[in-house]
Parts: sequence; structure tokens; C-alpha cells
Amino acid sequence: MRWTRKDLLDLQSLSVEEITTLLDTASEFKAVGQRVIKKVPALRGKTVVNLFIEPSTRTRISFELAAQRLSADVINFSAEASSLRKGETLKDTARNLEALNAEFIVIRHSAAGAPHFLARVLDAHVVNAGDGAHEHPTQGLLDVFTMREKKGRIAGLNVTILGDILYSRVARSNIWALQKLGANVTLCGPPTLVPRAFEQMGCRVTSQLSEAIADADVVNLLRIQHERQRKTMFPGLGEYTSLFGINRARLATMKPDVMIMHPGPINRGVEVDSDVADGDHSVILQQVTNGLAVRMAALFLINGGKPFGASQDRATGAAPAGKSS
Amino acid sequence: MRWTRKDLLDLQSLSVEEITTLLDTASEFKAVGQRVIKKVPALRGKTVVNLFIEPSTRTRISFELAAQRLSADVINFSAEASSLRKGETLKDTARNLEALNAEFIVIRHSAAGAPHFLARVLDAHVVNAGDGAHEHPTQGLLDVFTMREKKGRIAGLNVTILGDILYSRVARSNIWALQKLGANVTLCGPPTLVPRAFEQMGCRVTSQLSEAIADADVVNLLRIQHERQRKTMFPGLGEYTSLFGINRARLATMKPDVMIMHPGPINRGVEVDSDVADGDHSVILQQVTNGLAVRMAALFLINGGKPFGASQDRATGAAPAGKSS
Amino acid sequence: MRWTRKDLLDLQSLSVEEITTLLDTASEFKAVGQRVIKKVPALRGKTVVNLFIEPSTRTRISFELAAQRLSADVINFSAEASSLRKGETLKDTARNLEALNAEFIVIRHSAAGAPHFLARVLDAHVVNAGDGAHEHPTQGLLDVFTMREKKGRIAGLNVTILGDILYSRVARSNIWALQKLGANVTLCGPPTLVPRAFEQMGCRVTSQLSEAIADADVVNLLRIQHERQRKTMFPGLGEYTSLFGINRARLATMKPDVMIMHPGPINRGVEVDSDVADGDHSVILQQVTNGLAVRMAALFLINGGKPFGASQDRATGAAPAGKSS
Repeated sequence: MRWTRKDLLDLQSLSVEEITTLLDTASEFKAVGQRVIKKVPALRGKTVVNLFIEPSTRTRISFELAAQRLSADVINFSAEASSLRKGETLKDTARNLEALNAEFIVIRHSAAGAPHFLARVLDAHVVNAGDGAHEHPTQGLLDVFTMREKKGRIAGLNVTILGDILYSRVARSNIWALQKLGANVTLCGPPTLVPRAFEQMGCRVTSQLSEAIADADVVNLLRIQHERQRKTMFPGLGEYTSLFGINRARLATMKPDVMIMHPGPINRGVEVDSDVADGDHSVILQQVTNGLAVRMAALFLINGGKPFGASQDRATGAAPAGKSS
Repeated sequence: MRWTRKDLLDLQSLSVEEITTLLDTASEFKAVGQRVIKKVPALRGKTVVNLFIEPSTRTRISFELAAQRLSADVINFSAEASSLRKGETLKDTARNLEALNAEFIVIRHSAAGAPHFLARVLDAHVVNAGDGAHEHPTQGLLDVFTMREKKGRIAGLNVTILGDILYSRVARSNIWALQKLGANVTLCGPPTLVPRAFEQMGCRVTSQLSEAIADADVVNLLRIQHERQRKTMFPGLGEYTSLFGINRARLATMKPDVMIMHPGPINRGVEVDSDVADGDHSVILQQVTNGLAVRMAALFLINGGKPFGASQDRATGAAPAGKSS
Repeated sequence: MRWTRKDLLDLQSLSVEEITTLLDTASEFKAVGQRVIKKVPALRGKTVVNLFIEPSTRTRISFELAAQRLSADVINFSAEASSLRKGETLKDTARNLEALNAEFIVIRHSAAGAPHFLARVLDAHVVNAGDGAHEHPTQGLLDVFTMREKKGRIAGLNVTILGDILYSRVARSNIWALQKLGANVTLCGPPTLVPRAFEQMGCRVTSQLSEAIADADVVNLLRIQHERQRKTMFPGLGEYTSLFGINRARLATMKPDVMIMHPGPINRGVEVDSDVADGDHSVILQQVTNGLAVRMAALFLINGGKPFGASQDRATGAAPAGKSS
């Protein structure tokens, strides 16, 4: 297929073909990451602005590295130091960045829809790096990428997402991608945080952990944001851990080849024990590595790079962006 | 002419020829900004330090991009994270940066004269990115550049600067450049903020908005810094807006081809309404784009780059810094 | 010799040969710093993460420049903006950086041993940029480099270190390197801050300034961290200055060719007067310049670069990393 989208805003609106193209292109870039010289010249002379209105060191660094490896220049712009404190609107900030000829704006914002708004008013390419509780599409992609890489497929996989689903953009992006690609999705957590309404998205909803994990091929643990969790809806940390925390005993009740995932940063001893997080079933660090490849793919494709698909002859071994630089 | 200055500290001390050389060189760099590969190798292997003792995301990013497009390495150094908190003097900080072989220091400082002080004690090139209420020379240059680009000339233009003139470095840099290049400058605002003393600089001073804007070819609106405006001298925000805010009705009383300028960030609904800021007369975003070109020109010239002048053969189409990289 | 270490963690564990290799390689890189194009391609396509859990603008900038001049990409990661606030462990943070294919982690941390811990759990190269009161090896190396450059040798030099020795990682790294290379080390300061136990490291310990400086070839002044000095052990600032501050009168009692050193930032008028800090005996700014060369050498060697030694033919004038880029 030919990639035609200017932006990467969410997974909900992407076709199966588009998601597959992103994953295939990420595979190619992952191979680049294993070479001695990790850079390709695809975005040379172009500027990527990391516009992080909500702080996130990990995701910002992952995008910064992705841009650097595509040979782009990177500008970091965080809310703390910004003129947003002076009352400037998001639209004005973004237009100013575009007036500076910044071709790419990677935005994280606490308000759902902020990236979509920017994409409408700007000619620049916009990538959603997380918007409120709405979506975090590159996280969803890297999760699906990791499942596909390890399990060889998505269709038919039993994937359980565990935690505060209601307020999680990670969960939403996972659900969209997984449903499109044919996985069976189970959502599990305290009833206040996993409402039945998600059944309308085609998911199984349960608050019984044993039921949720018994036949899971993948268990994706969400981070408990205990520093800002809604007090009225969230049980105590201890109660959460005793009911839903994944420890060695619970791991033993799962399939022998179950994959344990987590978007990080981990609360060791809360949603997962160190035994499990650092154990053989965990792919948590591979997720981080894959995130870099997925973000390179996203920037590369929306820049108009030729997509890489399964049908393509890979025998040449050429890097996605041509010769390495 | 041949450029001989080591630094760019203010517009007051520049000759007409020097200002013209800066503007002409910026024109060449603006053309670079429209190419696919926006970088030229003029400053490759050199280091530009953004020494921002007073925070300013926009100006810092503009200088950072200008340096990146000249292929320089950039170091950002802001007061928040700096050893200035440990009581180090500005001179020591700057000497240390120079000892690290940083060839360029772009400084913003709340104290007027700080860049001049650095320029005296350092061999490194110094660019003033705003010093107290004194000057902001690249802002003045980009304003004049934008006027010249749109109106074809500066001599004889009627330019009105509106707002808190007394404490504005933007106003001062504009006044110096405009007077040197032959514009007729009118200053307008509340009497406490636009003292008669400016008449000695050759400006017309008035507190009557209608008088100030009736025959203006350009109206340059200053930002109302209401978060730090001197309470004793500044009328309330509402009063300022009702007396001096530019809205559609007031725009209608101006010349049909009047240009509306603003250094940003805009206080929508205070010094200017969105109708006007986003309307056909506004060149606010072009100012941002031109700021990048002006800053590239400044760094390029003080680095010893060959200036570009009107007399030069442009038929070759060569980039200012030779072949693009 | 062949360099074999993956990391640079301290000077205590380095052999004389290893220290000499670092110093010789730094000499080569110092020559690079005097060329017009200061970059060499040794680390092209590699990523250096500055992981500063304790703030330090100077050291961070020095490492950032060193990495840039080796053509590496640099990511800055400071505690303020980090997920460490969210309770992530240092180990998790570092593993995540490694999962992003960051080959080098430069760490500053308030806990002694943090770099050693990282070096054990990571495949990435780790450089200690200061850990608690333990070591600051690149500072020790740049101090020794500067002494060797000016005095032509280390063996037999009388070096006095003055100030708060007890809590100083700079002092410890200096002591290790100087003792290994054969200098005679004297430690001087208030008795509470210079305990007799240091005599077991082979140093002379005294609280008599006149005795400590009379026959010194080098006097290395430590910074008085008066903003965080332990109140119970530290005399008042005025008392410290009157007993140990180096002024013109005290300089006159020293050897005519004594070198005055200071790791910066200086407290002018506290541990040293401006007369002395800016005078002919001071090499404080040369230390800064040499720090850059030492850090380039450290990154270069642990990356597997071929070391440069005194026995090598320097007539070729080749840069350490081959052709300049």
C-alpha cells in the first residue's frame, strides 16, 4: 500500500493495512538499530519539535532518539519553560513552530484531541505522543509490534489488559489495534475502572483476575498512577496489589508461554513483582527497544517515505531510507 | 561592504550599510529555508551556546534552529539549571563557556548591557538576544526585514509602535533601525509609558490612538506583559484594551494596506483581537519565519561569512554558505 | 598498552599505564580542539545519555560538547524532568536507556557507587561524572593533565589540596591519580574536614596553611559548598577565608612558579581572591579546556578507540579518530 496520511493521531482511524505497514516499516528500522552506524539520512535537514505540554521523559527521549537516527534536528519544548505560561494558546505556539519551518510536531498534551486540533490547523506533520485519556498510538503500535514479533501473529491471540482501563490512553490504543488485527481482548481491573461499556468495543470485561489470565497469550499490565489516581474510584494500593498484582504464584497459573508486558515505568511490588518483571516471560525492555523502531517508522512514513511491506523483496537488505549515512 | 564586527549587540551602533548587509544576507537565508534540505555547512564543527539567564522559549528555539541550519552544534544553558544559582558571576560563566571552545554565545539577560560586557571580556562572538529594557537587535532586524519585504522599502514609511514603549527593548531596537533607514516613527501608548523624551530620538510621541494609526503604513503592537507590568504606571488591562487595543473597528480606520505586526506571544483580546491578529493585514507569522533568517544571517556574518548585498550577482543562486550540505 | 575497560568509574582502580593512556589520548584531542573543524567521526551514529540525577550544568555541558565533537548524538536527562519522580528505580531508568540502544551513559548521582552499580547491570559504557563524596574521575584526570602539561611531569611534584577534603570527590580522585603517578600530596583545611585518616593513603595532613603551601608546586583549591556545607563541621565563611583563603599576600609566600587550580565554580573572595583567580599563576580556565579533551579521550577509549601513547609516532599529525569530518 501507499502511505497517504500527513499525521499519526490515533489508531482508531487507521486501517488494518495502515497498521500493518507501520509494523512492517518498524521491523526494517529495528534492523537498522542493530548496525554499528544506526543513522539513516531520511529526515536530514528537517526539524522535529517535541512539544511536551505534559511531562514525559521516556517518551520524549524515545522520539528524540528516533528523530536523531533519521538525521533530523530536534528541538525540545516543554511546558515548564514555555511561553504557555505567559498565556499563549496551543494554536499560537504550534503556528509559531510551523512558521519556524518545523516539519514535525510531536505533541503530548493532557487534553484529549489536542493533536487532532493541531493537525487540522497546521501543514506540519503531527504525531500524537499521548493525549489525555484518549490515545497513545505509538505505544499501542509498539505493544502490538512486540506481540507480533514474539508470537508471530496477532489474529486469534488472547490478550488481557489489566489495570485502570477507564483512564488509560495506552489501553485504548491497544484495544483499537488489537481488535482491528483480530485479537481477542479481555479487560480486567476493579469494576469502577473497567466499566461494562467496553464490551461495546468487542472486549470481554471482567473483574476476576483468574478468569482474565487463565487462557491469556499476553498480559499487558498498565501502570498504576498512584500519585494521581482518582481517590474515589481507586481501591487502596495494597488492595489493588492483593487483587490484581502479578506475582510468581499468579504467573504459575498462566499459560507456560504467556508474555508479560508493561508500558513502564514499573511500580515494582504494586502492579507487578520484580520476579515477574525481570523474569523470562517479561518483554518489558524489548517494548522499549521496539518503541524506538515504531517511532522511526511513524516519522518516516508521514514524511512520505516509501512504506515497507511483507510483499517486498527484503533480500537486498537496504535500509528503509536508502544507504546508511 | 565587508563585515567586520565580532558581535551583534545592538542596532544603535550599526551603520545603515551594516543593517542593510544583515537584511540582504537574511534574504538569502530565507531562500535556503524554502529548500528541501535547509542546512548549509557554514558553522560546521562550531558551537553556539544559548545562555538564557531570563527565560524565553521562542527566541531560544529560533536561535537554536538558526544554529542547527548552519550546521553548528548547540548547547542550551538556562539559568534554572545553572551554576549561577551557586553564586557564580556572569563573567565566570561566560569565560568557562569560552574555555570550552564555544565560538558563539547568544545571551538573554535581564540586565541591560550584559551582552556588551561579555563581548568585551571574551574572544567568542556574542549575540544579544534581549538585554533588559535596552535592545533586542535580532527582533528589530526581523521587524524591519518584514516591512522591507512587504513594502519594498523602509525610507518614508510611517511606522507606529504601540504599547509600553518605556520598558520595551523591542521598541528601542525598532526605533534605532527605522530611524537610520529613514522611516517616520510614531510612538503611542499611555502617557506614563511613552514619555516625551523619545521625541529627542526623532520620534513623534502621542497618546491619541486615532492620530497614531490614521496614516500608518505599519502598526507594530508590543506585547502587554501584564504578568510583570509595573502596577503604578500601567492602567488596568481593560482600560488599556479599550484605549489602545486593535480590533476590527479600529483596523477599518487605518490605511487599506496597513501591516499589523507583533513580536509575540500575543495576548488575544488585550492588545489585539483575534480578528486582526489572524486577518489579512497581519504579518505576525511571517515575522517568526523571518526571525530565523535574520538570526542565521547574524551568526553567519559575525563568523566571518562573506556578506551578501544588493550589488551582488544573484543569478548564480548559490546559497550564502556555498553548496548546501 | 591496549585499553580494555568498558567503563570509567574511578581512578582508584586504574593502573598507572591506564591513567597515562587517558592523559596521552587527551593530549591528542586537545590538538583537535584547536583546529577550525573540531569534530572527529569516532562516535558517529552512537548515543551518549547525560543522566544527571544531581544537577551540574558545567560538567553536563563539558560532556555534551565532548560527545558532540566525537559526532555522537546526545540526550540530556535530568532528575527534575524524569520519571524518577514517579518512583522508578535507577536500575530501571538505566535499563530503559540501554533498551533504547544508548551506548554511553554519563551519570552524576548523589549516591557513591551508583555508576559502579550501573556498570555491573548494563552492557552500555558508563562514565562516572561524580558520585556522592566518592570520585569524580574526569575531574581528577583533567587536574593531573593540567599539572603535567604545565610542569612536564607528575612524579616528584608537591601538590597541596586545600579545603573540605572529607566530603570532596574531587579531592579523592586527585589523590588517587597523584599518588599513583608519584606526586607528594598534602591535604590542608580545618581539622574537622581533613581527618588524619588520609595519612593512610600516603598523604601529608596539616591544618597549617603556611606549612602546606610553602613548598607546593601546585595548590588545588576546592570549592567551598557553603550552600550545603555541614554546619556542625564547618567554621563560618569568614573564618575559613581568614585561615585558608588564598589572596595575594599568601600567594607571595609560595614558590614563584606555583600553579593555582580550582575545579570551579569559584567563590570569589571566599576560597580565593579575584587577584589570584585571574592572575598569572592561575590555570583555572585551562582546566576547563582540558576537561573537554579528557572527556573526549574517556568516551573514545571506552568505545574501543585505539589509545595514543608516548611511544607512538606523532609525526603524522593524524587525529585520534582518523580523518577529521
